[in-house]
Amino acid sequence: MAERRVEPRLLRGFRDYLPEEMIPRQRMLDTITDVFERHGFVPLATPALEYSEVVLGKYGAEAEKLLFRFTDNGGRDVCMRYELTISLARVMAQYGNLPRPFKRYQIGPVWRAERPGHGRFREFTQCDVDIVGAGGVLAEYECLQVDYDVLTALGVGRFVIRASNRRFLDGLATMLALRDDEQKHAVGRTIDKLSGQGEAAVRDLLAEEAGLDAGQIDRVFGFLGIKGTNDEVLRRLRDYFAGVPEGLEGAATLDALLVCAKAGGIPDDVVQLDTSIIRGLDYYTGTVYETFLLDMPGLGSVMSGGRYDGLMGIFTGQDVPAVGISVGIDRLFAGLVEMGRVQAAASVADVFVAVFDDATAPASIRAASDLRSRGIAAEVAVEGGRLGKQLKFADRQGVPFALIIGPDEVAAGRMTLRDMKTGDQHPCVSADEVADLIKARKHG
Amino acid sequence: MAERRVEPRLLRGFRDYLPEEMIPRQRMLDTITDVFERHGFVPLATPALEYSEVVLGKYGAEAEKLLFRFTDNGGRDVCMRYELTISLARVMAQYGNLPRPFKRYQIGPVWRAERPGHGRFREFTQCDVDIVGAGGVLAEYECLQVDYDVLTALGVGRFVIRASNRRFLDGLATMLALRDDEQKHAVGRTIDKLSGQGEAAVRDLLAEEAGLDAGQIDRVFGFLGIKGTNDEVLRRLRDYFAGVPEGLEGAATLDALLVCAKAGGIPDDVVQLDTSIIRGLDYYTGTVYETFLLDMPGLGSVMSGGRYDGLMGIFTGQDVPAVGISVGIDRLFAGLVEMGRVQAAASVADVFVAVFDDATAPASIRAASDLRSRGIAAEVAVEGGRLGKQLKFADRQGVPFALIIGPDEVAAGRMTLRDMKTGDQHPCVSADEVADLIKARKHG
Repeated sequence: MAERRVEPRLLRGFRDYLPEEMIPRQRMLDTITDVFERHGFVPLATPALEYSEVVLGKYGAEAEKLLFRFTDNGGRDVCMRYELTISLARVMAQYGNLPRPFKRYQIGPVWRAERPGHGRFREFTQCDVDIVGAGGVLAEYECLQVDYDVLTALGVGRFVIRASNRRFLDGLATMLALRDDEQKHAVGRTIDKLSGQGEAAVRDLLAEEAGLDAGQIDRVFGFLGIKGTNDEVLRRLRDYFAGVPEGLEGAATLDALLVCAKAGGIPDDVVQLDTSIIRGLDYYTGTVYETFLLDMPGLGSVMSGGRYDGLMGIFTGQDVPAVGISVGIDRLFAGLVEMGRVQAAASVADVFVAVFDDATAPASIRAASDLRSRGIAAEVAVEGGRLGKQLKFADRQGVPFALIIGPDEVAAGRMTLRDMKTGDQHPCVSADEVADLIKARKHG
Repeated sequence: MAERRVEPRLLRGFRDYLPEEMIPRQRMLDTITDVFERHGFVPLATPALEYSEVVLGKYGAEAEKLLFRFTDNGGRDVCMRYELTISLARVMAQYGNLPRPFKRYQIGPVWRAERPGHGRFREFTQCDVDIVGAGGVLAEYECLQVDYDVLTALGVGRFVIRASNRRFLDGLATMLALRDDEQKHAVGRTIDKLSGQGEAAVRDLLAEEAGLDAGQIDRVFGFLGIKGTNDEVLRRLRDYFAGVPEGLEGAATLDALLVCAKAGGIPDDVVQLDTSIIRGLDYYTGTVYETFLLDMPGLGSVMSGGRYDGLMGIFTGQDVPAVGISVGIDRLFAGLVEMGRVQAAASVADVFVAVFDDATAPASIRAASDLRSRGIAAEVAVEGGRLGKQLKFADRQGVPFALIIGPDEVAAGRMTLRDMKTGDQHPCVSADEVADLIKARKHG
């Protein structure tokens, strides 16, 4: 044991999740996992550390500056994972026996040495579903349905999934006779800034950073000006891209996607085609989606993804189609808290079983065990002491019931169940009776 | 995207959990979490990285060599967490508003740069419950009950929890007039090797490493020779430590612990007092436990812990009582696999909904959504193609049912549910009917 006194402090940019936040957060993750599995996605876990060479060259120079990269005790150049998709690509390349299509989910922390700020941490949780090895619209629909089902299951209120397709950018590249993929990606990255920076700034950037001339910029804004109902947007996209196969292909994919979404029970007004949705990352190749809570417009996208057919094959050189979507857990949780849809909880127990004294302790212990075997979360006092103090503790933790078994109760073969909110006390003669009363209140 | 081809490889000593292992592993963790919460333990999450100064000086020099320690981009001396208890101590010291007693669980990866070997990895999961701020036997009982309930819920077959108390070591120190705590801990660490190395080796070590003389060594083995039923062991311990308060206190604690265990429904033969159980770590101060599967004696302890009253206060200098127990998830999982009690699974879906062609795809999608809203895990094909190929895929994944909706079915308003094991096909007219058939088989 160290003698010197060390200040107990968190590393800059990191955070603890104390129980009052961790309890509802865990419930949220359970709900999400349940939706993923109900769609047949299977769990995968990969290590926190990867060889740096597996990771480098995939995210761009700016992102690589944010890697927690170091030399381990064995002299290996390693880094803490920056996100989960590269590890999925490694897994797909490394194990020959995985099914195709492979539908996996992974939930886990990732690390980025970003400048810490409002709601931005250096460790955060990613929560991804991806489908590897399926190139058609059914896979793109599947991710859309997961998006809808996750947000519906979480009860986030009204939301909209904005969708577009990267083939439109390819179509623009053809129509505008762009030089190369680099210029095309520069146009894409600039369009991605429209919602944040507005038209004037994006016009400037398209000239300065993407190198477009005034005529080209007008044509880009002709594309971005395509708005209306989904039917209108599709019709106008077909007009705009008349004779441009890439653009028409994008429209056909979105058309088919909407048919699937309707069949899956997603209401018409939830999916909205929006040509300004493009996703910042270069690697997307097909349908892209972002999701916004209508009651929290400033929050940004809470669930995003799309098709990325180039990335999965980087280790093998093969073309492997893939599509995925990622829940922004931390952002979504922050939004739910702000909307008052998350109940901070200090306890997971249904009932606090007080311990009156040493002589009656066995009766309290027996009652708690009996209740647990009936599916009740029963917390026995771990410190004796005055009954009033125990009940106050239970109340402060928000435990809804307390069970009291004093010497009188033991003698009479009874227990007293106290409703902590109302103060009502019910005499009970059996664990079944106690369990029924607690369940009635819990589910009623 | 990188042009150079990188070999897709895992870092030495690390592992991926592919779905066939991750599915049952996740079920195991869910079961454990459920038991923890049914006892009223609340979840806590702390970062993977801590300041090195928070961690150093707590584990000893040998352990510190195994830390993944590095300097981050901001010049901070940091390390990946070695275990979870130090972070709990930091949290207890850092936040003034936590309840006392504080019962938390934490499940998460830890990192140790050990020499990789059979079943030993550099990243593994710890799964801990701890009670901070309760010094009595009720807290020690609580951990024992969690131990029993976890292993019972997991269905591991017969097991035994061996318990002892560190106060006996204090009693020995008094009786043998040991020099100091260092010599006492040396005796403790040596006793801990008895089950692995045998009596002769331990006698040698007690002389060489702990510096005991022959008479002292005989008295230690007098203590270690105390065996029998729990009642006999308690009686003999009281004789052995007659007039030695520390030893008598240890016996009284174990006596009270057994009374609680009996009240909690733990069968008499599950808890066995065993004076050779001592736990290697110096910081234990009271009751200690280890748990062994009787069908897998070679596996070692699968759940261990005890009271450690000195550790929680290291940041504040205050005395804070604490007791905890930790599930050896990876060892337990390996044992369950070896005993054939874990079913490797490739799928989490109850039914695979085939997609016959583009025209019938909406009917398949609708059916899957209808089934999901009835609690069925329904996986829709994400690749069309030949029906036979789709069914073969579903069968290989071990999905128990397939639902087929071809043009004939759509025209007739029917679906065909195929039992993949028997090949039986049931015509169904509604999602309710399909759901009922699947549930009947699932729960029947």
